[in-house]
Amino acid sequence: MLNNLLCTTKPFLNCDMGESFGSWQMGNDEQIMPLIHAANIACGYHAGDANVMSKTVMQAMKHDVVIGAHTGYPDIEGFGRRSMKMSDEELTHCIWYQLGALEGICKTHGAQLSYIKPHGAMYNDMMSNSAILEVIVKAVASYHKPLPLMLQAIPKRDEILSLASKYNISLIWEAFCDRLYMDSGLLTPRNQPNAVLAKDAAIEQGKGILVANEVVTESGEKLAVAADTMCIHGDGANAVAIAQALHNSAK
Amino acid sequence: MLNNLLCTTKPFLNCDMGESFGSWQMGNDEQIMPLIHAANIACGYHAGDANVMSKTVMQAMKHDVVIGAHTGYPDIEGFGRRSMKMSDEELTHCIWYQLGALEGICKTHGAQLSYIKPHGAMYNDMMSNSAILEVIVKAVASYHKPLPLMLQAIPKRDEILSLASKYNISLIWEAFCDRLYMDSGLLTPRNQPNAVLAKDAAIEQGKGILVANEVVTESGEKLAVAADTMCIHGDGANAVAIAQALHNSAK
Amino acid sequence: MLNNLLCTTKPFLNCDMGESFGSWQMGNDEQIMPLIHAANIACGYHAGDANVMSKTVMQAMKHDVVIGAHTGYPDIEGFGRRSMKMSDEELTHCIWYQLGALEGICKTHGAQLSYIKPHGAMYNDMMSNSAILEVIVKAVASYHKPLPLMLQAIPKRDEILSLASKYNISLIWEAFCDRLYMDSGLLTPRNQPNAVLAKDAAIEQGKGILVANEVVTESGEKLAVAADTMCIHGDGANAVAIAQALHNSAK
Amino acid sequence: MLNNLLCTTKPFLNCDMGESFGSWQMGNDEQIMPLIHAANIACGYHAGDANVMSKTVMQAMKHDVVIGAHTGYPDIEGFGRRSMKMSDEELTHCIWYQLGALEGICKTHGAQLSYIKPHGAMYNDMMSNSAILEVIVKAVASYHKPLPLMLQAIPKRDEILSLASKYNISLIWEAFCDRLYMDSGLLTPRNQPNAVLAKDAAIEQGKGILVANEVVTESGEKLAVAADTMCIHGDGANAVAIAQALHNSAK
Repeated sequence: MLNNLLCTTKPFLNCDMGESFGSWQMGNDEQIMPLIHAANIACGYHAGDANVMSKTVMQAMKHDVVIGAHTGYPDIEGFGRRSMKMSDEELTHCIWYQLGALEGICKTHGAQLSYIKPHGAMYNDMMSNSAILEVIVKAVASYHKPLPLMLQAIPKRDEILSLASKYNISLIWEAFCDRLYMDSGLLTPRNQPNAVLAKDAAIEQGKGILVANEVVTESGEKLAVAADTMCIHGDGANAVAIAQALHNSAK
Repeated sequence: MLNNLLCTTKPFLNCDMGESFGSWQMGNDEQIMPLIHAANIACGYHAGDANVMSKTVMQAMKHDVVIGAHTGYPDIEGFGRRSMKMSDEELTHCIWYQLGALEGICKTHGAQLSYIKPHGAMYNDMMSNSAILEVIVKAVASYHKPLPLMLQAIPKRDEILSLASKYNISLIWEAFCDRLYMDSGLLTPRNQPNAVLAKDAAIEQGKGILVANEVVTESGEKLAVAADTMCIHGDGANAVAIAQALHNSAK
Repeated sequence: MLNNLLCTTKPFLNCDMGESFGSWQMGNDEQIMPLIHAANIACGYHAGDANVMSKTVMQAMKHDVVIGAHTGYPDIEGFGRRSMKMSDEELTHCIWYQLGALEGICKTHGAQLSYIKPHGAMYNDMMSNSAILEVIVKAVASYHKPLPLMLQAIPKRDEILSLASKYNISLIWEAFCDRLYMDSGLLTPRNQPNAVLAKDAAIEQGKGILVANEVVTESGEKLAVAADTMCIHGDGANAVAIAQALHNSAK
Repeated sequence: MLNNLLCTTKPFLNCDMGESFGSWQMGNDEQIMPLIHAANIACGYHAGDANVMSKTVMQAMKHDVVIGAHTGYPDIEGFGRRSMKMSDEELTHCIWYQLGALEGICKTHGAQLSYIKPHGAMYNDMMSNSAILEVIVKAVASYHKPLPLMLQAIPKRDEILSLASKYNISLIWEAFCDRLYMDSGLLTPRNQPNAVLAKDAAIEQGKGILVANEVVTESGEKLAVAADTMCIHGDGANAVAIAQALHNSAK
């Protein structure tokens, strides 16, 4: 199913799902699931628990949504948003563990696990630290069922492409509809006031990415963005509205 | 491999393994692994973590030891020894999660997951509460790869056998070398002073089970024990000595 | 301050507060805090974390709300609603730990810790199992600053009163506005369809308790309820409306 | 009691204690407690739990050992040795929470909490990052009972001294008997093969610190070390032997 999504020219929509935990709700999974193509499902380390995972897998299946593992640092209280200095071995094993847990639940429901997208601080560390990227690539490549790795659609990809080639894994490049792009093609850092786009701007940028593979950067320039998928943040107040507005523009 | 173990008349030896956690060590896995046939590996809920699990799976593979999932209640601090009232759904999903996590790590190392044995309070609750037993049997049966369930070799098995038959799972009955048996064939409760046998008595009882399928009960009677496997407790001071003494008597 | 609340004839309002956790929100603390007299603040074992606790203590102080420790079983995922078989020693120490953690934060903000109310399964176990009640009473009495214990205003109180007298602790009896009472004065079990009252019925029952110290039971009888305080559940959809409606009737 | 220790010229001995967790043992607390003057007791975030804390406080009291809070990052699995990027607010509150929990248990046993020493990665981050140091100093200073902060006896102390002065807290400088010193007065990094001294070398260095306030650096030079206390690592194989050898040389 992931192959079907990747065989077209338009980016598909992915969204972080299953981020509730125990008695605490997060996100609008029920409303967003019908609008997206791929669900990054939390695996219990930064969010999600076995009940939430099982329920979210069933929701994804109901709407033919492709399932990815949203692996995080082991930090429920910090929601995986605090960078943790794990050893290479710890990081590798914590990824295998999360992949296995979600894969077991997927298969039990008759679904399959199709890709991995690291979450929060693990995602940021992967994009900013090539040593951590390599550990993650190796962990994914050595998992019994090597999975495509979803990561940020940055402009300079040579190093990442050669790593992926070295370890023989596929990459899924993702753009963001609600984050302001700099002229460099990187995202404006979150600590800047204009880093996150409001609803209408996010919808407009999303359409640009989906229809024309381009964004308007902070300086007003048009910039090409080669992306396989576009991320919609599921926990914002406007998440459902944005997903609805973009659903038809996507593949 | 489990099939090979089950196709003989002598019980095989199983032991709880991989019960270290983070910086804390428990047990003598390295010394005991070569002496047993099946390792019940903790899955991170009551003990073990992703690093310990990966290492323990590799140790088991090195010594051709069959791997089972030692699933526990989600209670690291209590080591899974405190009964928790989980809902049927919670118990089911927590078992799937643990099975998946260990299976993912097993397969990544080229090993397979061959059975499940609940740990501590989950084991006791399963043996004393038929509603909980049924939830566990259903969880195991509905897992994408149904696994044999290891449980206590009690005398009256009709109810359990019909449950297993109803859900189409296999059972592995286990005896204990270091627990005193009552005439009823049940174990003397742990709160009684003579409940746990000292080293020499455990070795003698172990040999009786392995060689003659019988134990001497607290009243001095000989009692037949039909068991597929015999459990050696790995964390006691005499665990290695007992395992060494019984290794040759077992299959 | 608690003394002021207890020196009047009308029950005061208490509510569970600070039940958010990490990135997850729960309840309407900001809206409810101005409407209540006493806040049962979660201590990090079943809900709350150090950030939430600090923020909630400051909210309570702002509105002159008395602070109590809402101690729970160590089970974030289960929100403290799953009974756990802890040893007497474990239960005692887990209560001391939670009291100390909240007391340290209270004092650092210039507030004081005034009472304890066990949460969820710990509350239910306390009310239904006199051995657990005694462990809790002893734990509270032996804490360096013995605290009054808030518990359910049941009709037959002799055993509890003599325990409290034996260990020299004070009791705060609480009634419930949104739970249907049986003729016995006990609550209709939660697994019965009519156990929880809808908004208007809860407001009416609340007024009855606050103004006349009585409830109408499931059979339609009027029943006296001697209570020092009345609990408002803070996480329901109507929590704010109920609190607003009852605020003026309370002391 | 801490004042008594600080009023002499010889450094006193401190040791990390109470690092067991749940069913897992660590260290030789029983043997080491009689040999030291100050116990850094884990507070449940990186090690220790409410039972261990209570027991360790009682052990310390039995031997007239001063009690300090050994606060760590919230990471049991990583034993607090993995740096975590916490916000200033998170770090502050997590310190208050741990101080309160241990203080509550201390006071309940009739003991008092006398100082704080951050653990593992929190200690290292404090020593290498002045922004984190300031957050910790402020957290300690703003706690309802400001506590002296134990930290590494480095040569250049101006910045730390002015911070301590600014926030009006006391400092306790500690030297290490089993870590090789560089000529700069800093410790040889742990990733170097000679970073940790073997038993006899540790004893010799320890005596030098206790008796003459000096160490021999890696280049063979004698270097003065102005320290109020000396740390003995409690979890090493030689911990008891080292503590015994140094006990008499200390104050």
